[in-house]
Amino acid sequence: MLVFKLRRRSNMADTACTLTPMELYGMLNLQGDQVRVLKSKKADKAEIDSAVQLLLKLKSHYKKKTGQEYNAACPPTEDVSSSNNGPAVEDGDDQVDPWNVSTSSAKGVDYDKLIVRFGSSKIDQELIDRIGRITEQTPHRFLRRGIFFSHRDMHQVLDAYENKKSFFLYTGRGPSSEAMHVGHLIPFIFTKWLQDVFNVPLVVQLTDDEKYLWKDLTQEQCHRFAVENAKDIIACGFDVNKTFIFSDLDYMGTSPSFYRNVVKIQKHVTFNQVKGIFGFTDSDCIGKISFPAIQAAPSFSGSFPQIFNGRTDLQCLIPCAIDQDPYFRMTRDVAPRVGYPKPALMHSTFFPALQGAQTKMSASDPNSSIFLTDTPKQIKTKINKHAFSGGKDTIEEHRKYGGNPDVDVSFMYLTFFLEDDERLEKIRQDYSSGALLTGELKKCLIETLQPMIAAHQERRKQITDDVVEQFMTPRKLDFSF
Amino acid sequence: MLVFKLRRRSNMADTACTLTPMELYGMLNLQGDQVRVLKSKKADKAEIDSAVQLLLKLKSHYKKKTGQEYNAACPPTEDVSSSNNGPAVEDGDDQVDPWNVSTSSAKGVDYDKLIVRFGSSKIDQELIDRIGRITEQTPHRFLRRGIFFSHRDMHQVLDAYENKKSFFLYTGRGPSSEAMHVGHLIPFIFTKWLQDVFNVPLVVQLTDDEKYLWKDLTQEQCHRFAVENAKDIIACGFDVNKTFIFSDLDYMGTSPSFYRNVVKIQKHVTFNQVKGIFGFTDSDCIGKISFPAIQAAPSFSGSFPQIFNGRTDLQCLIPCAIDQDPYFRMTRDVAPRVGYPKPALMHSTFFPALQGAQTKMSASDPNSSIFLTDTPKQIKTKINKHAFSGGKDTIEEHRKYGGNPDVDVSFMYLTFFLEDDERLEKIRQDYSSGALLTGELKKCLIETLQPMIAAHQERRKQITDDVVEQFMTPRKLDFSF
Repeated sequence: MLVFKLRRRSNMADTACTLTPMELYGMLNLQGDQVRVLKSKKADKAEIDSAVQLLLKLKSHYKKKTGQEYNAACPPTEDVSSSNNGPAVEDGDDQVDPWNVSTSSAKGVDYDKLIVRFGSSKIDQELIDRIGRITEQTPHRFLRRGIFFSHRDMHQVLDAYENKKSFFLYTGRGPSSEAMHVGHLIPFIFTKWLQDVFNVPLVVQLTDDEKYLWKDLTQEQCHRFAVENAKDIIACGFDVNKTFIFSDLDYMGTSPSFYRNVVKIQKHVTFNQVKGIFGFTDSDCIGKISFPAIQAAPSFSGSFPQIFNGRTDLQCLIPCAIDQDPYFRMTRDVAPRVGYPKPALMHSTFFPALQGAQTKMSASDPNSSIFLTDTPKQIKTKINKHAFSGGKDTIEEHRKYGGNPDVDVSFMYLTFFLEDDERLEKIRQDYSSGALLTGELKKCLIETLQPMIAAHQERRKQITDDVVEQFMTPRKLDFSF
Repeated sequence: MLVFKLRRRSNMADTACTLTPMELYGMLNLQGDQVRVLKSKKADKAEIDSAVQLLLKLKSHYKKKTGQEYNAACPPTEDVSSSNNGPAVEDGDDQVDPWNVSTSSAKGVDYDKLIVRFGSSKIDQELIDRIGRITEQTPHRFLRRGIFFSHRDMHQVLDAYENKKSFFLYTGRGPSSEAMHVGHLIPFIFTKWLQDVFNVPLVVQLTDDEKYLWKDLTQEQCHRFAVENAKDIIACGFDVNKTFIFSDLDYMGTSPSFYRNVVKIQKHVTFNQVKGIFGFTDSDCIGKISFPAIQAAPSFSGSFPQIFNGRTDLQCLIPCAIDQDPYFRMTRDVAPRVGYPKPALMHSTFFPALQGAQTKMSASDPNSSIFLTDTPKQIKTKINKHAFSGGKDTIEEHRKYGGNPDVDVSFMYLTFFLEDDERLEKIRQDYSSGALLTGELKKCLIETLQPMIAAHQERRKQITDDVVEQFMTPRKLDFSF
């Protein structure tokens, strides 16, 4: 959000004020809103006209000054005044929002930069050690290896936990297709670990309404995907006595408390705000515009009276991929204004596509990742054919110069799924030195993933419709606060 | 609302701008809002500080320039610049939308003009006669007297009805307070008649969520008003076996089908559309922006599977005041795109305030109308004291020139509530001729309203919480299609 300021040297004795591009831009934003307000209010024609006249004058002057057309969505790229004060537009930034993740670097998104941009905190060694001490467990490999790398308010959560004040977990998934890939498991594998070591209840939101609003799918399709995805989530081993999984299309219509929280949130968020956070435009449907409140609502324990006996004061912890943070920045902004605690968060990095870390995977491209339905043979073929290699072109060169694990997708996947730290470190060294060849590295990944996926498929087979229904039935969960 | 303008002589080649007191005042208003927005958004401290700094500078300068303290509530007394371009003249059109109804004519809104503007059809004698023929009943006085004056697709509804294809009724109320006045009864009195003569089921929506979003009220207050208003609605004599009354805050959370239709509608309406229809702005909350879909949903029979056995093809007829038409223009636009029949409508005129037909009544001003809780004495006093009279100043003049029933509120009220056509016509003639004095006319209205209100209060007393619960329980209704 930008504001317009008067240059220090500008003389306030008269009202003359020389505006910088950034100041002009801020003024244009305000005056633009002003014109919209007047029109919607059906104000006097004269009033509207003079407001519009000023707007046009400012625009033409803005163009004179910057050589650019005024565009509310993007501030002036060159700003003399702000060069020494504060964040203007950073070029070459990675793009990260709930619908787009892109970077130009083969190593992937610059996560330290994201922490600064999003204003979250780094999960540092001290926090990792503290979690280990409190849970008396070895911190999960996702923590040890910086895969969950960023957080909000975790120390506060742990302070309370040490004082016997527990919390509940909330994570979710957008069921855009039946097929889930290994990357989709990351938040669930970690959430399952958190549920075990902290012994806390968990709610899992399946946003089938969101997928209906965003994709060219019917409600029936989205709901079916939700149920199918629920099976893969359950197969991660969640405790049925501590876990509630719900489809929005079902749960909204079965819980007055959930809807009441959604409306409460919707009353406290303006279109200007969601426009700024999510980049919605006037031609987006009103369903998209109001949806963020639906993803926000499960952060508040009052949305689940059957689980929390109507208590609205319980702390929520949300493990999710960093691209979901905008939803929860909004939620944390609203929370105090509706009298609820702000949810805490733990953010994960993205799981790279087989083709490389430049992009997030798409469930639509079967070769972009390993799917939970792949056969051992498919896993082997995909990795050998598609996994981007950090190795050299010839064995000779590789032996001589070594490979680059930082851009090697097979090695990246091993950091996610190979539990043994020492072995992983040895692989890194041998690959870098050239002692380990790309083929051998891939073989090692194949031998790690094949049994893991097979075991998942085995567990998933055991999950009957009855089991799914148990998890998806609103009910009391087994825990004590 | 004021805006700041640049003096013609101000040179746009540089950004130097000399502000008049009025321009400074407008700038202060905008910047004041800006600061509030930043604070509520918990923006960076630096951002807020510089916005506040500018605000203070502007204030001190405003004082220098005007010798007055800036006060958002009152503009500067002297404004040179705006003297030559003052507020433009009204374009004469009546303003009619769900939140504002205003006209300059003492006879009230020009309804023929509205029909043209809204693109609806006039309820003409032919349609009235046809309704009489089909129902074998004398058309209701609201039809005979042009109180329900406009419609959409009524002939289609009647064609189907004659071919044994029935329909269902949908009307509603925004429960903004416990107090309802006689004007609020108009749609319900007429709907009750339609239910009787056509023998059809009815759904009544109480938009307590809307009132929560628009007013400074809690959800609990709005819900309580909904239940209280339900009692007055039930007291109109609706058949419990054919009528379902629901609060949005309750029903949304108890009916997945209702929510699914809401989302379906929300997917097919853009912000541009609701902006055009309802005049929403970017600073409106996302709850308001998506609400129209919630008022639209009951137009579709699929929103009530328990009543209509899951059928989605049943025709809906909506009796409502004309100011609600924008919601249903939107609904009729969406219907074919989601595969549902367009609802038909019958529009009523507005019930005039005691003070005159220029405005709609406000439940907040106790003297603007007769309330359903008024005692016989209060009714008498209000009418004698506040009912705008079309009579002459002195008895002599009145006898000589006669009164004007077209602007006389007591006479208007009689057209709503006096059943006897001949007697009403005689009153009109005698009042116009001067034979009937204002006092006598008012007496006649008092004698009509006192027993009517007393009887309503008597029926309302009989309505227990159990009865309310019966009406508000989702259930099968008694009818056949």
